[in-house]
Amino acid sequence: VQIKVVEKILAANDAIAAQNRQLLEQNGVLAINIMGSPGAGKTSVAERTITAPALGGLSVAVIEGDIATRYDAERLAALDIPVVHIATGGECHLDAPMVKQALLQLDLTAADVVLIENVGNLVCPAEYDLGQGKKVVVSSVPEGHDKVEKYPLMFRLADAVVLNKLDTIDAFDFDAQRFEANLKDLNPEAAFFAVSCRTGQGIEAWADWIRAQLARS
Amino acid sequence: VQIKVVEKILAANDAIAAQNRQLLEQNGVLAINIMGSPGAGKTSVAERTITAPALGGLSVAVIEGDIATRYDAERLAALDIPVVHIATGGECHLDAPMVKQALLQLDLTAADVVLIENVGNLVCPAEYDLGQGKKVVVSSVPEGHDKVEKYPLMFRLADAVVLNKLDTIDAFDFDAQRFEANLKDLNPEAAFFAVSCRTGQGIEAWADWIRAQLARS
Repeated sequence: VQIKVVEKILAANDAIAAQNRQLLEQNGVLAINIMGSPGAGKTSVAERTITAPALGGLSVAVIEGDIATRYDAERLAALDIPVVHIATGGECHLDAPMVKQALLQLDLTAADVVLIENVGNLVCPAEYDLGQGKKVVVSSVPEGHDKVEKYPLMFRLADAVVLNKLDTIDAFDFDAQRFEANLKDLNPEAAFFAVSCRTGQGIEAWADWIRAQLARS
Repeated sequence: VQIKVVEKILAANDAIAAQNRQLLEQNGVLAINIMGSPGAGKTSVAERTITAPALGGLSVAVIEGDIATRYDAERLAALDIPVVHIATGGECHLDAPMVKQALLQLDLTAADVVLIENVGNLVCPAEYDLGQGKKVVVSSVPEGHDKVEKYPLMFRLADAVVLNKLDTIDAFDFDAQRFEANLKDLNPEAAFFAVSCRTGQGIEAWADWIRAQLARS
């Protein structure tokens, strides 16, 4: 009985996700679901994306998911872009109905890209389709090079993986080649970007990838 | 209907947790549920705890929870202590029935302390009582000083918080006073230890705290 109910929840989620996807496609908007551990740097990646020269002239909006606090939403709103804050109230992931409510508060006719920052969690968000165009995992050097192997579902489903905090690599015993090799083994199709949101290293290649996804959509 | 089922799952979990607690108390064993984000250093804290001089002469066993891979279990087994590995197969947290199965594989009459390393997740494990004596959250400097505010439930329920990777603080914009002040605001009863598993800094105070919990139990 319990499993059936979980299936129903996921089926209901997927039905709303399909509506979100249709709404986004009708408006020619690329939505990116940004997932990752607490403190991986999801908000910093969003900031760098919004201000990247390669995305100049594009209109970017943000849907910001948090269990508690508005800190991340306020950081992004300071960039003078549309931000909708979803307070999940304890929920460990965003779901499609939450994102639908947020999308309805944005002017999608004026947007090119919507960044959806998920709750900090390397497990649960992977199971919930939000209707996004692309799924991205932000991982970071201090978390260790074994994360792809230890939390495979999210990395397997990712369209791109951004390895952040590259500027701190000397402070950690981190094998970047192993991280990338593990990703290639698990998900050969995923794009991979090693970046530092502090220094800006690698951000240009990441922003170019987003522009390329827009051109295809 | 859906909420009722979730309540039933939690009630069933709590019933088994009570059995675990009784089993541990009958054997005079202190079980510590170690929770935290992916890559916070839960396994490193367990390693340092097992080898701490302040806990010399005590018999420590480990229950190691992982979604995938046996890496952490193998690291701890190398210390020549009893280790039971729980492969959750995708589940985002340990639950009391999993821990019960693991406890039945340990010789509890010979154990003083059982460290239970939960799945790397700052959200979901907080909701599942395992029957442990104490709950500990391992957080880390690279995750940022805002984690107490952003993920309050787990920090509110913690008996102790271990802030790890203190040796890397110069590489990050981390306000240790703010982290500790936020914790004191949210949970004034929680013990707090700032440590570096790499250098050993702060480990003695943490190990002394464990010994004090044993004396009380």
